[in-house]
Amino acid sequence: MAKENDLRLIDLSTDARTLPTDEMWEAMRRAELGWVSRGEDASVNALLARIQELTGKEAAILLPSCTMANLIALMTHASRGDQVILEESSHIAWSEGWGICSIAGLLPKGVQGAKEKGGRIEADDLILALEEEKFSHRPKSALLCLENTNNAYGGTVLTPAYTSDICGVARERGLAIHLDGARIFNAAAALKQPVKSLVEPVDSVAINLNKGLSAPEGALLCGSQAFVQRARVIAKALGGDSMHKAGIIAAAGVIALNNMMEQLSEDHRRARSFAEAIQGIPGVEVDMSSVQTNIVMADISASGLDGRAVLQQLEKRNVAGYLNRAQLIRFVFHRHINDEDVARAAAALAEVIGFKGKGTGC
Amino acid sequence: MAKENDLRLIDLSTDARTLPTDEMWEAMRRAELGWVSRGEDASVNALLARIQELTGKEAAILLPSCTMANLIALMTHASRGDQVILEESSHIAWSEGWGICSIAGLLPKGVQGAKEKGGRIEADDLILALEEEKFSHRPKSALLCLENTNNAYGGTVLTPAYTSDICGVARERGLAIHLDGARIFNAAAALKQPVKSLVEPVDSVAINLNKGLSAPEGALLCGSQAFVQRARVIAKALGGDSMHKAGIIAAAGVIALNNMMEQLSEDHRRARSFAEAIQGIPGVEVDMSSVQTNIVMADISASGLDGRAVLQQLEKRNVAGYLNRAQLIRFVFHRHINDEDVARAAAALAEVIGFKGKGTGC
Amino acid sequence: MAKENDLRLIDLSTDARTLPTDEMWEAMRRAELGWVSRGEDASVNALLARIQELTGKEAAILLPSCTMANLIALMTHASRGDQVILEESSHIAWSEGWGICSIAGLLPKGVQGAKEKGGRIEADDLILALEEEKFSHRPKSALLCLENTNNAYGGTVLTPAYTSDICGVARERGLAIHLDGARIFNAAAALKQPVKSLVEPVDSVAINLNKGLSAPEGALLCGSQAFVQRARVIAKALGGDSMHKAGIIAAAGVIALNNMMEQLSEDHRRARSFAEAIQGIPGVEVDMSSVQTNIVMADISASGLDGRAVLQQLEKRNVAGYLNRAQLIRFVFHRHINDEDVARAAAALAEVIGFKGKGTGC
Amino acid sequence: MAKENDLRLIDLSTDARTLPTDEMWEAMRRAELGWVSRGEDASVNALLARIQELTGKEAAILLPSCTMANLIALMTHASRGDQVILEESSHIAWSEGWGICSIAGLLPKGVQGAKEKGGRIEADDLILALEEEKFSHRPKSALLCLENTNNAYGGTVLTPAYTSDICGVARERGLAIHLDGARIFNAAAALKQPVKSLVEPVDSVAINLNKGLSAPEGALLCGSQAFVQRARVIAKALGGDSMHKAGIIAAAGVIALNNMMEQLSEDHRRARSFAEAIQGIPGVEVDMSSVQTNIVMADISASGLDGRAVLQQLEKRNVAGYLNRAQLIRFVFHRHINDEDVARAAAALAEVIGFKGKGTGC
Repeated sequence: MAKENDLRLIDLSTDARTLPTDEMWEAMRRAELGWVSRGEDASVNALLARIQELTGKEAAILLPSCTMANLIALMTHASRGDQVILEESSHIAWSEGWGICSIAGLLPKGVQGAKEKGGRIEADDLILALEEEKFSHRPKSALLCLENTNNAYGGTVLTPAYTSDICGVARERGLAIHLDGARIFNAAAALKQPVKSLVEPVDSVAINLNKGLSAPEGALLCGSQAFVQRARVIAKALGGDSMHKAGIIAAAGVIALNNMMEQLSEDHRRARSFAEAIQGIPGVEVDMSSVQTNIVMADISASGLDGRAVLQQLEKRNVAGYLNRAQLIRFVFHRHINDEDVARAAAALAEVIGFKGKGTGC
Repeated sequence: MAKENDLRLIDLSTDARTLPTDEMWEAMRRAELGWVSRGEDASVNALLARIQELTGKEAAILLPSCTMANLIALMTHASRGDQVILEESSHIAWSEGWGICSIAGLLPKGVQGAKEKGGRIEADDLILALEEEKFSHRPKSALLCLENTNNAYGGTVLTPAYTSDICGVARERGLAIHLDGARIFNAAAALKQPVKSLVEPVDSVAINLNKGLSAPEGALLCGSQAFVQRARVIAKALGGDSMHKAGIIAAAGVIALNNMMEQLSEDHRRARSFAEAIQGIPGVEVDMSSVQTNIVMADISASGLDGRAVLQQLEKRNVAGYLNRAQLIRFVFHRHINDEDVARAAAALAEVIGFKGKGTGC
Repeated sequence: MAKENDLRLIDLSTDARTLPTDEMWEAMRRAELGWVSRGEDASVNALLARIQELTGKEAAILLPSCTMANLIALMTHASRGDQVILEESSHIAWSEGWGICSIAGLLPKGVQGAKEKGGRIEADDLILALEEEKFSHRPKSALLCLENTNNAYGGTVLTPAYTSDICGVARERGLAIHLDGARIFNAAAALKQPVKSLVEPVDSVAINLNKGLSAPEGALLCGSQAFVQRARVIAKALGGDSMHKAGIIAAAGVIALNNMMEQLSEDHRRARSFAEAIQGIPGVEVDMSSVQTNIVMADISASGLDGRAVLQQLEKRNVAGYLNRAQLIRFVFHRHINDEDVARAAAALAEVIGFKGKGTGC
Repeated sequence: MAKENDLRLIDLSTDARTLPTDEMWEAMRRAELGWVSRGEDASVNALLARIQELTGKEAAILLPSCTMANLIALMTHASRGDQVILEESSHIAWSEGWGICSIAGLLPKGVQGAKEKGGRIEADDLILALEEEKFSHRPKSALLCLENTNNAYGGTVLTPAYTSDICGVARERGLAIHLDGARIFNAAAALKQPVKSLVEPVDSVAINLNKGLSAPEGALLCGSQAFVQRARVIAKALGGDSMHKAGIIAAAGVIALNNMMEQLSEDHRRARSFAEAIQGIPGVEVDMSSVQTNIVMADISASGLDGRAVLQQLEKRNVAGYLNRAQLIRFVFHRHINDEDVARAAAALAEVIGFKGKGTGC
């Protein structure tokens, strides 16, 4: 990555690279370790107790990644050969190595979310998908997966009311419900609602500690006692329940859960401010209604420029984004981005997009 | 765990709870993160380069646990339905959630190791197991798994000569070979041989960074370019290739690989010293030939005491061990154990075993 | 199924219910049985030898169903987690219980066939699907599945030239190719080409003996020696290689392979004759270019009638069809249908469709 | 197989090669076929109704083989990663391709049966195996598999009283119970008890139609409505629910269920008579207490002869047996063996074993 100057990189490519806070580092060094599997690690116990309180779920397990948490949830709720309904562009389907097929042996059934509703699955479409089972040769659906916030649609949130309604529809028809809540704390911050109200209607939720929350690693899978007991057996076989020093990351995780909500709100404010700044650039379109949390999706198709080239030009200006589709660039805000960075990044994008007419070959 | 006094716990139950060294903590805080999956994280790159150098293998991948590294190796070398030959009491079979069956879909074929040879699989027994395929209805064997050091037999080592011979026998018969080298650095320290000479004959090796090496977490799976490329695909589906901040633990891992060998030798010296001290206790037997690294197995069957009760009495004296079988206690030495601890732990065991005649009901 | 009169049912719903011929029955009764798994059953040996000759493949295995033959081919060619490219509406994807996911653990990638080319996958679309792997997070493609004749598109054929071309494209890109040739003999009859020329470019082919060929049961999976050897191991685990009396159905199968080609041509002639008769019915559309073998697809959407209701009315007139989609009815021709039946079935359809205006409430 | 004369082969190697009776052939030719999956095939319906009546189970499904019936039962009762308890030498473990691991993903836990009790699992040993779970790292047991008659122990029977007792023990501890009843009709004939009394305590039973019962093919899996409904989904994915002409074998199956019990009793009488004849041969030992149905196990270890060589000599005399272990030969009686054959086979064995002293090099 050649940079043209000495400026610090404004890395908007992901919020999964936030460094632990000083407080986290101190907690990590102080952590005393115990047998995790026997429930004798104090930090892990504190973390699980805290997330149970925040989610209102009976039990929880700490795992190395949210991908694994989602995989285990799939395997615990559904049996090999069952169908799982999820939004067509959901993270579980596309960004988790398709373990849903290869490891879990489940059949994903994608339902297209309503774009104007932030990509959420509408009740009618869920019902239609379930009806389809009866006429086609598709297997029985066992599980509905939701995602809050919805990554592919720009970090949009699912409200408690919506979640409750769609879960009601699913449950009536015999489905269990799992929530990929990798960024559920962003949703809570945006909605100014407790996490509990967002996850109350679902059977299980997977939560990432290392995105905006800034813990060094780890994800939590929460649900009923019986659910987590079965999840634990699968976690052991997958090598996810053998982090003997989980107490170290758990100590950071407790702080992530307790002290980072204000930061998330700041991230959201900056994302909005960035979105407003760049939507005025000719050739750039931002659906402002989708800018609900810490993600901004910039559609540059009107510019006629290739996303890959734009990203390269941005990097020369010390700004990193992420290419979602050929002409759709994602910018993610987090605790290493300050107000000045927002302005500089927006200016860089304006410059790069503006290059077009100047024959830079971008 | 009620303790009778204020003394620090001498925790000999496992070496998987060693805290990172100060140097590791500093390296972790200094780590700059990058996209791991694109090969852009400097710490991860440094760690992989170093382990490739040490093992002589072309490629490597950093994973959250050695259980996962072993599972992925099984799935990469063998296809669903194949038979895998391993020592009957090996860690892969017994302590990794039986993912070998449930996730990998393989059939484990246990071969009893030669007790007098530290539990290693003798060539004749391997050949016999392979012959059995032809007469019975067992499936074709695709893989031989070795373990160095051998946990269940008290941390015994496999020499380069043995490894080379048994791999020759396996390879002639079309088997791939995977080495569970969770504690391969202990073997190298004990044999005063480079790790490279111990893993040269195998196709792949899994290595734990967080046992005696004291890193906070992580395991490495090493092999050919083609092997690691396939392993990476499986790792993604299992949720083991999505540690976005792997750079943090990788920074500690580099130090674990470079600076901890002397510590391992110290651990071995103390284990031996402890073994010598306790083998004189009436009712305690230690097979001194098996005390080769940092593990001591104390057979208390001659004492007539129940292992569980003995462990409880030891804990009252601030000493922790691990119950392997009803009357077999494992003591593991690591960097938090000093010479004084060795003496105190041996004395505590003598006291507890001696209690027998004194009607304490232990 | 209430019938209004005593007439024999003209069953055009499927060709999978053809009764064995007298010659087959006699051969079945004469069959002497031997150990199939040791290669000691004379009838099975004769059947395998014959299909190897007809397909030009080195080896073959007799299985209870074509669904199992396809499943085993998928599991033999591809490893858990691989992607398999197939036509979006193919039989393997839709009508075989999705074992491709649940049992084989593979990710199906549907490519839409060119409707005007009988639903065949165009080379450009195959290349596009393979390109997509590089930009998306889809796993590596290991296998291309073709289907000849193509059931969902009305029994259309793939020519030797097309098959050779598309296989060339696939092979260059490292894919294996499996052909679902449930009705490959129909394709051969229609094209007046030997089966060998149709399967030469593929690695494996599954062939049904009990459709138009009229054997009582069984399917053959053919490929290289190495392929069939691995297939046999999987077949045993699935319970498909334990038909101890396979010799009985094999005896019928030999006759199916040797003596039924003329019958297939007759079936094709009658299908065409039926198609011509019904395409004149107002409200019924038949794409005559797709009527290449023994299947006729009648699109009744222009009639405004519901397919289910039309089928019920047809059954009252002793004619059975099969509902493919809400307004698409499939008619399949086979050895129990004679020329008179063709005329009667066409007349029945005309009558039922004509009912529309007469207020029968159909 | 070179034979020294023109005599018909007395094939005692298996009862899985019995030809259909004339009555079966006639029924097969008369069978009218219907959609099996829609419950519209009259012969299949009659067969299922009859087996439901005989077993007292709510529902049943016809499958191509007993191996598949057992596999589906395993997959229906237990979830990937569960432990299944079965007798160490049971048919499911050893003779069904280990699909229990590779396809079902279950962990088999072998319990050694009591030899003096015909190989049945004693309640104490079952309890011990379940206790072991708590202390070792074995996964939770979900299922107990029984086998009646017990093939490896010479066709010994499980009585209703035993079955009821062991199932009580299993059920109390939360296990489901599946019975591999490949030869349950032999058990019923030997015990002079209705099949219903033998299967009442189990959740599901797999029954072979093509052993002594002489149908050309097929097995039945019986259980509750809910069980069979789930089994059907798996059967479809495995290719076991797509035998479109199942009506043909079902028609034979009905006769197998209704008319063959007397034949089984005859087979048992002849097996006993053969056992009595050969136990007098010096060098041959038969555990007469194990000769309960149609199987005789001849232990020839006292003769010093190699089983393979003995079988070859027997074949020269037109007698076929089956080598179970190096010096254990199995003889199975069925409807193609008459009283004269019994005498001739015993004489042949006497002659072959007698050869020893005569330096024939056998």
